[in-house]
Formats: sequence, structure tokens, C-alpha cells
Amino acid sequence: MRLRDVGEFGLIARVARRAQSAIADPAGVVLGIGDDAAVLRPRRGEDVVVTTDAVVENVHFRWKTTPAALVGARALVAAASDLAAMGARPLAVLLSLAAPAGLALDRLEACLGGLVREAARHGLPLVGGNVARASETSLSLTVVGAVARGRALRRDRARVGDRIFVTGALGASALDLARSERRGARARHRPAPRIEAGRSLARLASIGACIDVSDGLAADLGHLLEASRIGAEIDPSRLPLPRGFSRACKKLALDPLRLAVEGGEDYELLFTVRPRGPGAEALSRRLGLPVAEIGTIVRGRGIRGLRGTGFTHF
Amino acid sequence: MRLRDVGEFGLIARVARRAQSAIADPAGVVLGIGDDAAVLRPRRGEDVVVTTDAVVENVHFRWKTTPAALVGARALVAAASDLAAMGARPLAVLLSLAAPAGLALDRLEACLGGLVREAARHGLPLVGGNVARASETSLSLTVVGAVARGRALRRDRARVGDRIFVTGALGASALDLARSERRGARARHRPAPRIEAGRSLARLASIGACIDVSDGLAADLGHLLEASRIGAEIDPSRLPLPRGFSRACKKLALDPLRLAVEGGEDYELLFTVRPRGPGAEALSRRLGLPVAEIGTIVRGRGIRGLRGTGFTHF
Repeated sequence: MRLRDVGEFGLIARVARRAQSAIADPAGVVLGIGDDAAVLRPRRGEDVVVTTDAVVENVHFRWKTTPAALVGARALVAAASDLAAMGARPLAVLLSLAAPAGLALDRLEACLGGLVREAARHGLPLVGGNVARASETSLSLTVVGAVARGRALRRDRARVGDRIFVTGALGASALDLARSERRGARARHRPAPRIEAGRSLARLASIGACIDVSDGLAADLGHLLEASRIGAEIDPSRLPLPRGFSRACKKLALDPLRLAVEGGEDYELLFTVRPRGPGAEALSRRLGLPVAEIGTIVRGRGIRGLRGTGFTHF
Repeated sequence: MRLRDVGEFGLIARVARRAQSAIADPAGVVLGIGDDAAVLRPRRGEDVVVTTDAVVENVHFRWKTTPAALVGARALVAAASDLAAMGARPLAVLLSLAAPAGLALDRLEACLGGLVREAARHGLPLVGGNVARASETSLSLTVVGAVARGRALRRDRARVGDRIFVTGALGASALDLARSERRGARARHRPAPRIEAGRSLARLASIGACIDVSDGLAADLGHLLEASRIGAEIDPSRLPLPRGFSRACKKLALDPLRLAVEGGEDYELLFTVRPRGPGAEALSRRLGLPVAEIGTIVRGRGIRGLRGTGFTHF
């Protein structure tokens, strides 16, 4: 069976069934799939956080190398990670799907199944979307969240003297990609959006700026510094690497530090804390995750200390 | 210049400049383009309305036959019309853009200019989005609105005895499409989303169900009836047609009634009102628009009375 055999409304009905079975009665959803729009109800005193992110066939994924369910799950993680970076609690997700009429329905259903399951895991009911014909498949996701009024985490809040921290470890997604590109291995790594950690940081009085690591540490730290109009000094020896990472990189003749600095899609949180705030150990207890201190916010612009790690923007 | 010459971040910077100049200080926007997500602030006691809609090159539009600014404006109208159908006031819009690297920057900027100007006209600041490479251009829009708690207009609220009304006139978009397809004329019709009319209907105590006419009267009335699990009796002689419409249709050997019943993208509001509610004249004064009474909600399923109008679903 192909997409054209069930058509737009047939597909919507299938997606709606999946979405409803995934989350029975999500709090905050007044009206889900089936009307002209979804209706959501944030709590009193909350701001609404909304963002959109897309993955496109042959640009962000290939059906050949990535299992269909993982395509859907990863698309969801990428979008949900932006909620984490804002410190927001998840409210709902909408999917704008474009696909060729000849796309195999099995593949599409596996992809949407992966998406809806991953969304349910993070408390994101699928409440709407639309389906369009196109020459290649793309998933454009809109995620909506809520955060206590005025407490959203921002990129532009770093100040001189802030310490710079990162959750978890960097480079696992880049290694997975290199493996599937060089060895023809099926992609398998599924990073987790740091939603609970983000919410916890939004309550931290001494929080500075925050961003998620989607384009790679160097690029995303660059975005944070640009928004804050300030510079950073990084200690590359303190970058947190996954277990067994250096050994696995060497097998593929890859530079582990370069992967950690330039590799994207790790979806860790990169954030700064005022000098009087907690250190890595206290933060790690608070967030329930490994947290590494990797540098300091300094006067000027750009990143110092990454020379020799493969990062060559300066 | 092509899209590839400015790249993703260059394009985002251009779009952000346009978006900022279009609406200087939109109420309800705490944080716009430039962070991981936008932050919006509905008023106390409001529900949040959110929906997504996409247009794809060669499916919904062709660069050859539709001026680029109109492509952007129409995409915005289609999405904003869903807010109108919910009775919501506009808060913000996000754009997920996919485009080939070789797309002419002039064309893209004209398209985005049309979109942002149309958005500003309806009080929708562009607060975020993303850009991806793809083999054809597509614009996936997310619009966010707000409506008094529990007052969102819904499709599933029609009851036996309700009178059925439609705003404005039906068929103008279908005629414009037929002209551009048959005569090679450039498309030029730009329908308006009925946002103020929708907000006014959301305050009407005797309101029943509501939907916007995007797929065509027959199809959208069908959606409304299906959601409400009920039937309708329509009087085709009362369908409101644009001025000079029948004459223009005859020139192209088109059946005016068929265009009015089956033509999509008019974005009028189709709604029902309880028997004790106002009639067409009072509604017209209230909404500041022509309003026509076209039929009644009846027991059973499906639409009676459209036989002989070209509508053949039954």
C-alpha cells in the first residue's frame, strides 16, 4: 500500500488514532486533532513557548540508512529539545507532513509511530497538523510548551564571569553518523531532549543564558555569545565525552575532540551560571544528569581555547 | 543571487529584519526571532489556539503563474483563516521554509515580503521558524492565537434546527484559478481571512458550529456535519456569488454554481446559529460583512439539496 491508496484524510485518520492511543487524556489540551486548530490551556501565570523545526529526506535523513521509526523519533527530539532549551514544560506537538503519493504506507506509519511514541515519552500529545503531496518526504514539527511568566531561558543572558556548563556528553550523534556513512551501518543513536533539566534550570535564580547543542558545541556556543554580545574561554580538556568514545573514534580514524566540538544533534543543554551560583556537582545533583564545567564567559567576542580541536572559525 | 549565496543564517537575518520592520512592538510577544523558541503571552483567562498549514511548489502554486508576493500572501491567508474559524485573535506566526539552494533570492524575498505584509495586516508578527534545503519550495506556517476560555468555535457543535450561514461570497478563488489555468492569465485574487468576523461569532451566545471554506463549500460543510454527526439541507438558490460572477463563468464555459459549491480557498466562514439566534441581516450588521442564510441542520447524515450543482459525493 502506498500513501495515495489511503489519501490525505485516510492518513489523517490513521495518525489521529495513533495520537489518541498514545496519550489518553493529556492535561492542557482542550481540543486535539479534528477541528480547524487545536486549543490548548496553559496554567495561570504561564507564558507560551512555541517553535518549529523540519527534517527533509536526503538532507537530514535517508530512508536507506535510518530506520523509519528513528526518523520520526529524531525529528521529535530535535523539536522538543528547543522546548528544553527554553526551560518549558511540554504542552503539545503539531506535524506538517509532506510526502510523495508513492511513499510506502508501512514506512510512513513506522515513521509516524516512532514520532508519536517519542512524543508521548515527553508528554507531547499530537494535536494537529496537515498533509501535503511533495516530491520528497519532510516532517515539519511545531512544539508548544509553557513556562512560568518571565522565566523562559534565553540565549542573550550571559554575563562576564558566568561559568559555562554542559549536560551529559558530546559527540555521540556525530560518531553514529560517521559510522553509518563510512561503514554502511544502520543509524541507531537516539538522543534525549533534556526537558526536565531545562525546567529545573528555569527555576534556578543564578541561571544566565541557555541553548541546546543542535548544530554542535562551537556553533551553538557561538549563537549564545552573539546573542549575549560577549566572549568565552573554553578548556577543551574538560569537554565531556561519552564512555568508550575515544577508542571508537580511533577505530574510524576520527579526532574525538573534533567530533565533540563540531558534531551536532547531541541535544545537550549548554548554559551559564552566575559566579555565586552552584558548581558542576551541585548542578548535576539538581538536574539528575552529569554536568561538566567547560569554561567561563569573558569580555570581547568569539571563543578562545578551541584552537587545535578542529574548530577553525577563528 | 541565489539562496545558496546567503545561506541559512543569511536568510534568517533577512527575514528577521523584514519581520521586525513589519510590526514594531506586537502586544503578546515576549520574545521573537533569535532564540530557540518564541515566547508569547496570552491574556489571563484565554485559551491558546494553534494550527499548521503548508503550501508546496507545483502542488499548491507555480512560480510561473502566481506572482511570488501572492504565493506568500496566500499561504498566510490559508493559515490565518483557521484562526478565524476558531474565533481566535491572532498572536503570532512561525514559518518553516524549505527551498532549493538555487532558488532566486529575488523571488524568495518577494514571497516572504508578501507573507510578512499580509501577516502584519492581520496582527500576526513573524516570531520564528526555520530554513531547510529541499528539491522544491514549500512554506509550512504555524499560526497561534488566543480566545476567551472555552469560547473557541468548533466544528462539532451543530444541532438539528440550526440555521446555516456563510459570509461573503463563494467561487472567486476557483474562477481565478480557472482563468490562470485556461487562459494563462497571472493569478491575482487574494482572499481575506475573516478574523474579525470569527472573533465576533465567538462572542455570540447562540452560535452553533463553525468552519472556514478552504476545500470548498460541499467538502467543508461535509467536515462540519461529520464532526457534529448530523445532516444538512441546502438551498442552492441562496448561495452567495460574487458580483459579475455568472457572466465571467459563462465566458469560460464554467458552471457558476459548481464553482461556488466545489471551489476551494474562499476562506469564508460557514457557521450555524441556534433557531432563537439572529438572522442573516442582524448577523451581517454584527460582522460588518454580507451574510447569507443557505440552509438548515437536519436529522440524518450528509447534504441534501446540492444535486444538480455539480456536487456528486452522494
